[in-house]
Amino acid sequence: MKGLDTEPYKGVRDFYPEDWGRLSTVFNRIREVLSKYGYEEYQASPLERAEMYESKGNEEIIREQTYTFEDRGGRRVTLRPEMTPTLARMVAHKRREMPFPLRWFSIGNRFRYERPQRGRLREFFQTDVDFVGLPAGEADLEVVTLASEILKSFGATSEDFVIRMNSRALLGAACKAAGLTDAEGVKAYWLLLDKKSKMSAEEFEAARGDRDPLRVIEEASDPEVRAEKEKIEALIATLQARGVDNVRFDPEIVRGFDYYTGMVFEINDTNPENPRALFGGGRYDALVSMFGGDPIPAVGFAFGDVTFMDFLETHNLLPKSETAPQVYIGIPTIEDAPLAQEFGETLRDAGIRTFVYLGERELGAQVKDAVKRGIPYFFAYGSQEEKSSMVRIKHLAKSEEESIEENQVAKHLKGLLG
Amino acid sequence: MKGLDTEPYKGVRDFYPEDWGRLSTVFNRIREVLSKYGYEEYQASPLERAEMYESKGNEEIIREQTYTFEDRGGRRVTLRPEMTPTLARMVAHKRREMPFPLRWFSIGNRFRYERPQRGRLREFFQTDVDFVGLPAGEADLEVVTLASEILKSFGATSEDFVIRMNSRALLGAACKAAGLTDAEGVKAYWLLLDKKSKMSAEEFEAARGDRDPLRVIEEASDPEVRAEKEKIEALIATLQARGVDNVRFDPEIVRGFDYYTGMVFEINDTNPENPRALFGGGRYDALVSMFGGDPIPAVGFAFGDVTFMDFLETHNLLPKSETAPQVYIGIPTIEDAPLAQEFGETLRDAGIRTFVYLGERELGAQVKDAVKRGIPYFFAYGSQEEKSSMVRIKHLAKSEEESIEENQVAKHLKGLLG
Repeated sequence: MKGLDTEPYKGVRDFYPEDWGRLSTVFNRIREVLSKYGYEEYQASPLERAEMYESKGNEEIIREQTYTFEDRGGRRVTLRPEMTPTLARMVAHKRREMPFPLRWFSIGNRFRYERPQRGRLREFFQTDVDFVGLPAGEADLEVVTLASEILKSFGATSEDFVIRMNSRALLGAACKAAGLTDAEGVKAYWLLLDKKSKMSAEEFEAARGDRDPLRVIEEASDPEVRAEKEKIEALIATLQARGVDNVRFDPEIVRGFDYYTGMVFEINDTNPENPRALFGGGRYDALVSMFGGDPIPAVGFAFGDVTFMDFLETHNLLPKSETAPQVYIGIPTIEDAPLAQEFGETLRDAGIRTFVYLGERELGAQVKDAVKRGIPYFFAYGSQEEKSSMVRIKHLAKSEEESIEENQVAKHLKGLLG
Repeated sequence: MKGLDTEPYKGVRDFYPEDWGRLSTVFNRIREVLSKYGYEEYQASPLERAEMYESKGNEEIIREQTYTFEDRGGRRVTLRPEMTPTLARMVAHKRREMPFPLRWFSIGNRFRYERPQRGRLREFFQTDVDFVGLPAGEADLEVVTLASEILKSFGATSEDFVIRMNSRALLGAACKAAGLTDAEGVKAYWLLLDKKSKMSAEEFEAARGDRDPLRVIEEASDPEVRAEKEKIEALIATLQARGVDNVRFDPEIVRGFDYYTGMVFEINDTNPENPRALFGGGRYDALVSMFGGDPIPAVGFAFGDVTFMDFLETHNLLPKSETAPQVYIGIPTIEDAPLAQEFGETLRDAGIRTFVYLGERELGAQVKDAVKRGIPYFFAYGSQEEKSSMVRIKHLAKSEEESIEENQVAKHLKGLLG
């Protein structure tokens, strides 16, 4: 009988327990780092009113890639392509009652209707970290440091990644000084910069033409350009003085979103085989005012799960999964199941993740099953073990076995599991 | 200036950090209990191919309430209204390579286009727990015990909730014995049972008519009915013998989904003010074969966040949130920010969730800010504290203050925070 298709919808992923265990262990590590810095997680529905993404503040490419549809009541709904507009909406909604500044983060899924390809999915997970309510200065320093600390918490060193930083205010001043005064010309130039890494030097030279803001930034003879350049260089120098020594100025960093107003940055793997940015972020002081009221200054960054997991795997930094069962209790016969379950309770009470077999296979097959599942310890428990008060624990990776008194099993396993 | 609307899309919720902290602390407690029983979390995208919900196995009321739309490539997509079909799809997809039985769970959002009302949202969170690959027997016992253990892990006692259990096989046999042989008649009778609690005794009496399977079950004179009744009563007796003493037979339990084939159960608050079922589940041995291949027996249950949180609140069992900052470091002046951040590092390294103030308000305002945020401890750190190596920690709930040596602060706070 031919049944329904078992593939997931095109461009999204199924996470089997092994995959989800790996990813959720990483997310929990990220949560731990962020909460130690006083950041608190917020969440919202992926369903947002479509109008939120249709205002001028948003990038065309995002608008063209949304999942937007009409609900049964005729309301236009969009599956959020990114979190920052939702954050701005929520901040605006309770701006009168909340204590500022806010240190917020969110880990969740985002949706983009893209042609599926390596590293580009229609649904991906993103961590968004934002500091809302303080202008440039200490907030910018903290946010960039935090991005670096997240990577370091997995064991990355400052040789493994580089933080490239620029300033939208500087780019704006340079465009003006270079004579690019119309919004469209500026936009076209930014798009060119964004694409530069994919062009040859000759192609870029030909495309950038005479009025080149990059040269203006390099010369820094225009007073406004010089002032903005000094500001961003001072920020970088402070970061370096505080130990973030892998940050450098890069006038070619633009970042895709229109809403950035100040510092922008990207973090890249130093391994050239992994060219996509790991983290991206910047200051966006005007976004909250899209929802009315005075602007509220904000700075933040985001990173996606695919590039981040690639980075951890490439550098051999993936943490051990913290969710898989730790011990397998086999049963000599199915009649022993209640005894095994009852004994399992003593391990669960000690916080040990305990898998009790409840089927009718023989013990040898149960040991093989434990190996196949990657569970490190095995023992059988039935009427004989109950009578003798002794169990034989197999350490499956080493093919070793030892006899332990029943009332010492939980303690002994805790010791073995570290 | 009138800006964009800050309300979320109709029928969904924004989770501010306080709300999410409460909910995620509860979810993590659930994860802990389940993983101690060897259950592992899986996840999938909320986007599923619409055809999966359009087969006969699914309840009309669910099909009528889905969010279904066409993507930009003309594919019909549904936002999952429940998780079980996705579970069945994933199990079917890898049935040849996975070791059975599977103990799986998933905590995530589900979507239904309902008229928003108290307790009925368009997006809600649901925990789905499933044991796949063993027939009725120990697997059923474990799953029902586990539902009970989840409630007990929050401090609920068996007086706080009741487990009502029935059997679809028994209901089927009783319908047959009562002469209800056509599928529509059976369906109509089950819908009637499902609505019974909302009807008066007279209304129910009038509606059920002569051929009443409930009477057939009570009498149990039909041999098939008697056999099925004995099976479910034996299951209940075993549960009671193993300490699940608040389970009882209830021939009126049906459960909404068509795919159940054996035992079905509901858990209700014993407080009559909270009449909606907290948990619901049962055995569904045929669902995986919708995707082709032989049937794989399975049993599971699910519960939604709204009724569950209501239960915890009503019984005063909500755990303390584990995500909010634990200490607030104030700064005498903005120039002290780097010193405060650096000192904050020593607390973060000790695992303390540390909020460092980085603005320009006076210390008194910072103390008030800490109180407003609900952070229990406050101290200021600046050049003076650095010089004296002493800090004054305020215990904000008690309005007490004590001087602690700088290098003892982390240890002291760890002690205070338990």
